[in-house]
Parts: sequence; C-alpha cells; structure tokens
Amino acid sequence: MIIPVILSGGSGTRLWPLSRKNLPKQFLPLAGDSSLFQQTVERASQLGDVGAPIVVCSDDHRFLVAEQLLQMKVGGASIILEPAPRNTAPAIALAALQALQRDPDAVMLVLPADHLIGDTASFQHAVEQALPVATNDWLVTFGIRPEAAETGFGYIRRGEALEHAFRVAQFVEKPDASTAQRYVDDGGYDWNSGMFMFKAARYMEELDRHAPAIAAAVRAAFARAKSDLDFVRIDPATFIASPEDSIDYAVMEKTDRAAVVPVSCGWSDIGSWAALWAAADKDDSGNRLEGDVIAIDSRNCLVRSSERRLVATIGVDDLVVIDTPDATLVASRERSQDVKKLVDQLKAAGRPEHVFHRKVYRPWGNYDSIDMGERFQVKRIVVKPGAALSLQKHHHRAEHWIVVSGTAEVTRDEEVFLLSENQSTYLPLGSVHRLRNVGKVPLELIEVQSGSYLGEDDIVRFEDVYGRA
Amino acid sequence: MIIPVILSGGSGTRLWPLSRKNLPKQFLPLAGDSSLFQQTVERASQLGDVGAPIVVCSDDHRFLVAEQLLQMKVGGASIILEPAPRNTAPAIALAALQALQRDPDAVMLVLPADHLIGDTASFQHAVEQALPVATNDWLVTFGIRPEAAETGFGYIRRGEALEHAFRVAQFVEKPDASTAQRYVDDGGYDWNSGMFMFKAARYMEELDRHAPAIAAAVRAAFARAKSDLDFVRIDPATFIASPEDSIDYAVMEKTDRAAVVPVSCGWSDIGSWAALWAAADKDDSGNRLEGDVIAIDSRNCLVRSSERRLVATIGVDDLVVIDTPDATLVASRERSQDVKKLVDQLKAAGRPEHVFHRKVYRPWGNYDSIDMGERFQVKRIVVKPGAALSLQKHHHRAEHWIVVSGTAEVTRDEEVFLLSENQSTYLPLGSVHRLRNVGKVPLELIEVQSGSYLGEDDIVRFEDVYGRA
Repeated sequence: MIIPVILSGGSGTRLWPLSRKNLPKQFLPLAGDSSLFQQTVERASQLGDVGAPIVVCSDDHRFLVAEQLLQMKVGGASIILEPAPRNTAPAIALAALQALQRDPDAVMLVLPADHLIGDTASFQHAVEQALPVATNDWLVTFGIRPEAAETGFGYIRRGEALEHAFRVAQFVEKPDASTAQRYVDDGGYDWNSGMFMFKAARYMEELDRHAPAIAAAVRAAFARAKSDLDFVRIDPATFIASPEDSIDYAVMEKTDRAAVVPVSCGWSDIGSWAALWAAADKDDSGNRLEGDVIAIDSRNCLVRSSERRLVATIGVDDLVVIDTPDATLVASRERSQDVKKLVDQLKAAGRPEHVFHRKVYRPWGNYDSIDMGERFQVKRIVVKPGAALSLQKHHHRAEHWIVVSGTAEVTRDEEVFLLSENQSTYLPLGSVHRLRNVGKVPLELIEVQSGSYLGEDDIVRFEDVYGRA
Repeated sequence: MIIPVILSGGSGTRLWPLSRKNLPKQFLPLAGDSSLFQQTVERASQLGDVGAPIVVCSDDHRFLVAEQLLQMKVGGASIILEPAPRNTAPAIALAALQALQRDPDAVMLVLPADHLIGDTASFQHAVEQALPVATNDWLVTFGIRPEAAETGFGYIRRGEALEHAFRVAQFVEKPDASTAQRYVDDGGYDWNSGMFMFKAARYMEELDRHAPAIAAAVRAAFARAKSDLDFVRIDPATFIASPEDSIDYAVMEKTDRAAVVPVSCGWSDIGSWAALWAAADKDDSGNRLEGDVIAIDSRNCLVRSSERRLVATIGVDDLVVIDTPDATLVASRERSQDVKKLVDQLKAAGRPEHVFHRKVYRPWGNYDSIDMGERFQVKRIVVKPGAALSLQKHHHRAEHWIVVSGTAEVTRDEEVFLLSENQSTYLPLGSVHRLRNVGKVPLELIEVQSGSYLGEDDIVRFEDVYGRA
C-alpha cells in the first residue's frame, strides 16, 4: 500500500503578500478553487491502492490542515506537528515512523504540498513506474524533464537504466545559466522535483547509516509524541536537537540505491510569482488577471485584486501586481524572486504584514480587522456552525457585538442568552464572556472594541475547546 | 482693487483614483498639506490690494469649497454655483457680473484652482506687471516660459512690446512634437496657462461683442440667481441655455486687445500623474514616495499609498502606483494621460469608482463604508462639532450606532438622549431619527446597517440644516 506523505511545512515567503507565515502558499487557492495542499492530497488519493495521507506541518498550521482535510471529507489522516522546522530529512523521518506504525512494509510517496501538476495522468503513470522500483528497495526520486534552462533548481544526471527507472549518476547543485543550458542540451539531466517514493523502512535504514544524529533525534521525539485531537504532537525538546538537513544532502546523495523516474507532467513548484504566471492560463495579451482587474494596453502581467478592490493597469508590461486588503506588491516579473528580500525587510522592521493577513483564521472561524482608530477597533467575526470561542475576558477593552447573520449564544458572566440577526449586546471591560454558534449556518457579527489598549494579547482564557486555555 | 476669481469647476479625471468626480484634484492635498484650491486662494491673498475671492464651482462641491475656505479662515468669499459645466467663458462671466456688483472698476485675476506654482515671488511680480496693463483696458493672459517642448498645451506667440507686456500675435493649438520643438527654439512662444487678468467690465464688453449668446444667457441666469447660505445659486434653466465655450475661443482669440505677460514661476497644471511627479521633490533614485511605501531597486516612480495600507515595489522603473482604499492604479508614467480612457471605461460600465471615494464628504462631516456583506454594511461616521445629519428615516434598514469618540445627541422618534464614548443605540426600521454632535470635538461612531436594501437612496429627509430636505 502506498501512503502519501504531504510535506506542508513551507513558509512560502516568495509569494508575499498573498502568502504569509500564518497562511502560507500551500493553503491558498493559487490555481483553481482548492488550495495547493488540497490539490496535492486529491492527486495522491486518485492513485490506486493508497492509504490515508500523513501530513507533516507546523504547529501553527494545524487547524488549517484539519479544516482543509475536513472540507475534502478526507478522514483518517495523520497530522504530524513539527515543533520547529528542521528541513525535509527529519520531517520525512517523522512520517516514516508514523507509516511504520501502520504497516511495516509501507511505501511512502513523498509530495511537497505546494507543487502544481498540470498533467495528472502523466504523474500517475510515473508513480506506477516508480512503485515496483521502490518495492525493490530503491529510493526513488522523480526527475522533471526540463522545459527550459532553469537556474533555480538542482539537476539529476541519469545513470544506467533500471527496469522502469534509471540509477542516479549524480545530483548537481543549482547551475549558472550556461551550465543549465548545457544540461538541457545534453538531454541526460532532469530537474530535482523534491518528490520521492520509497519504503518507510528503507528510508530509516539509510538515515540511520548516513545521518545517524537526525535518525536518533527523530526516533526519540517520535517515541514521546502525544496524540491530541487529530494531531500527533512531536516532543519539542528532543526534535529540536535534530540537525537541520534536506533529504537530498542527508540521504539521497549518499545512498548507492538512488533511482530516478523521469516525468513530464506540467510540474511547477510555484517558487515565485513569475512561476505562477508561467504555469497559469493567460489571455491573448499574455496576462493572467484575477479578481476585479481592468488592464489597458498591458502585456504579460500577473494581476490579482482582492475582494472589494479594483486594480487597473495602463501601458505596463511584464509586471506582477498583487493586491491584498492591507498590502500591495508591484514587481517586475523577472525580479519576483526578490520578494524574499522584501519579506526580510518587513521581518527586520518588526512589521506584522509578513506574518498575518488582515483576515486571521482561527479553529472556530476567522476575524478581519476592518477599521482601527486611536481607541477603537472594528472586526468582522465569522464563527463556524457548532464552533465556539474560548471563555475569556479582557483587561483593557469593552466590546459591542452586533449579529448581522446567523444566531449567537452569548455567555456574559452569569447570563447565557441568544442573539439573532440585527440584535446586539455589550460586554463591559472585565466581563467573562463566550461566543458560540449554536446554529446550522455561519454566524457573522460586527465587534466594536473600545479601550486604551487593543492588542490581541489582552486576553485571559478560562476554557477552550481547542486546547488553547 | 484686484478680485481673485478661482475657477474650481474641473473634474480632474486624469488623476484618478485619487481625484474623482465627487472630490476632484483641486480639493486634494496633492502637493503639501493644503489642497491645490487652498494654495491658489492663499497665493492670491498674498498679493497687495486684493478683495475676497470669488469662487466658481459645481453645485456638487459647494460644501467642500465652504469647508476649505473655513479651514483657512477666509471670510467674505462669494461661492458661485454652476448648475452645469459650460466651460470657462460662461464661468468667468458669472464671476465678472458678481465682481461688478462689488465694484464697477473691479480688476479680476482669474486663476484655475488646480495649478501648482513653485515660485510665488515670480508669480507676484508677473501680477504686478499685469495690473497696469489690465487697468489700461487690455485683456491679459499669463504666458509660461516653456521648459520643454510640451505637446499638451496651447502656445501664445508674443507680438509687439507694450509697457510691462506684449501684444498677443497669435494663439496656437496644442502642437505636435516637432512643432513644439520649433516653438521652444524660436523663443517667441509661451505656454497658454489659463490664468488671466482684466477689468470685469471689459470682459463683459468683449463677451457681448464676440459671444453675445453666452453673454445674454449668463446675464439672464445671474439676474435670477438666489443667495443661499454662503452660496450664489445660478438659475439652472437660463444658464444651461448658454453655449459651452472656453474664454480662449470665445474672447481671447477674437479681441484685438489681448496682451501676454510672460512668466517663469515653477508652474504646473498637474494635468497627469506624470506632471505631478515632474513637479514634485524626488529622492536620489528619482522616486516620489508618499505614505507607507517600500521601494526596492525602483527608479523614477511616483508611488502613493493610502492609510492603513502598505505598497511595495521591486525592480520597476517609470511607474505610477496610486493606491486608495477601494482602487489601485498601476500605470506607465508616460501613459498616465490615458487614465482618462480608464475613467471613461468605468463611466461606461456604470461603476461608482469614478464618482465616489469609499470615504464620502458631507456638509456635516464624512462617512467611510468599511465593510459590506449581503444584508449588512458597516460605516465609520465622523460628525463635525456643532453639525447634525438630517432628520430622516429608512424603509429598508435598521441601524446600530456605537459611539467610539466624542458625544452624540440622538433623536429617535419622540426621544432625545445623549450617547458618549462606548455607548450604543438601536434605530429600528422606520424610526425617525437624527444624529447631532453637540460637543466640542469630532464625534466618531460605527454604524452597522442591516436590511434587505442598503443603498444611499433609501432615505426620507424631514428636516435638514443644509437645505437638502
């Protein structure tokens, strides 16, 4: 049985301002209606004999992963929470140990959550090719047949032919432009995609041999893991002791059983806005326009507007314009790799825009800070049916709630009462309160906060169904 | 005595999205803290013996003009309301008739409200030069010494020298690039600035002679004008009967008493974003950045962000990026004249973004539509001290008001009560209500509307201190 392992730990800084630490690119609907993560899970589920996926993600994203799997009605998944990023070798080791608990002969298909694959049939065919190779104890990597002399990827040189695959002759680092061209002209090189297939047991064997410190730390951390709701919480102290390394460096370049299955499947790692533009369907002017956009005499641009906002371009070429409720990026398409520099600047300046969106997702729903003044803040709050915020109080702010859709059950100190559309209540400073959606449709309300300090950290939680108290 | 006449009827579509029909460029602080209109009034007031200004503007902008004059503590101004735009010849005729009521020998200094003048001393000097010429019955136009072979302006060829001025030899239309270059090389041509000086009586004389239909219609409309608060309301039916024409075509090109006073005074008509960029101080990279902007490797750009929004640029040159709460423009600087095309598209599509900003100014203050859903809308409302909204009711919506700053006097059917910071009230559908700021500081409140129809036109006004009932 194949067990899909979805690596969802990336932070996607190159797709700022749409992708941010708190909601990175794999969880966004960047190509189509579902997120890249959901598309990856869906793609894996369409293979023949596959088990429930194992997802490895950051603790910060646990509710996003659970929610997006729930939307897809995918049950039985294991969601492994990394206490800190340690790169792919330890993450895949966690998944391998989880897979071995299910089945000592488990074959893992390791897929980054943020890749786009246009041609699913070719991808499936490649996985079918790889399965007997992996079963035969090889560690298989999928090599993407290069479409251009890309300098942003590592390359794999194919060696002797095996049945359904090739032995890996060499992994080579990201080349300069002329070397990349030479690789493409040679015909014997493929892009290193970061997708793999191997037996879980074989991966651990090779990790024990070539990166014993990682293997030891991960085994110890996994042994102390705790199950919590749908999640497998990895022990932080022991996991953080693991060296940080990629599967390529730690295992694939060192094993003598590395094989490559070449594939052409419309693959993109969506590593930049330029890559997303390249992978997208475009209009006759070479533009990809999403949302409320008017483009006059503009060519080869990617333009995205956010809800309730119009973006207009006039006489521009080769631009990326990404508009969000609190930040807009205008970049030369060729320079879109440098978005990372910008995010580093935001980080250094301690600005929130690299971490949070204006709209923040919580396990119970979301809130959007729609206005802010010196002593007040206005939020639109959406609570999912059946969900509840924690029982809480604030030291520095009072709150007004006006229900605009659905029904709220409000706890205010000793009272519990219902509010329906167009009803409101007041929560004085210091009152212990809770908001619950007891209905069958989403509850939407407008919250007006007033007080001298309005930070998210002015909250005392007494009870929380999501374990945050 | 000189009477400044400020022509404020322009719609400023080339500076969209900052300039919109409801709040056009002359009323915006495009260069410095005060608006172009205010800078024009201020500039005129600094001349020696000047009277209170006459402002000619659209009826739609009457409260903006009154408010901006009040901010400057300018009293005694006449604000003439044009029922419809009829170009400059009729507008100046209205001002001339008003000036003649004050003083039969009045000399008018006609200034468009949306020009920028960097060098006030040179401007003052030119006006001093022009005064004796105008007093001597000439119609004076100010000719800007050309700084480049501009194709966007008409030119004036200087004729024989008069004392302090030149006779106008010829007005020439906007030239093509090579003709413009020839005019500049020739040295005998100036840009037609649209600023004039003449006796009010002489202007009417020439208008009677050369454009009698305009003169007759304007005289009839002015005779039926009504004074209303600070405003002179022109009779619509008779005024609309006037032909639409510019002072250049109707009078200046026809009179044999046209004189030109050449001047170099850092003049710009801010006719496009490119013109504003050219007139602005720039950083070492040639950028003019306003608001929360981060520009990486960007050159010769004009970038403006609005409140609460970050705009970032990477690796772009010669761009204009104008960000507002509901619309963002990204244009090649060279193509910024084509903003007009875009506005025409918005007009044709019946979109509100060419008329209104998200924040709308009213005589009593302003409101900003900060959020909107299917059956609700949230507004931030600011009421000026002493101001009041009309006594009104709505057929399709109920409203919640939460005061976040200042004190409100609320009328709700038979009741009248005060609300202070952090207090709220509810106005059921159909209730007759009024909001008044009885305090000394601005009143800010959050209004949550809910109902099946939320358009601005669902309002029945019973009483209004601004004459809108």
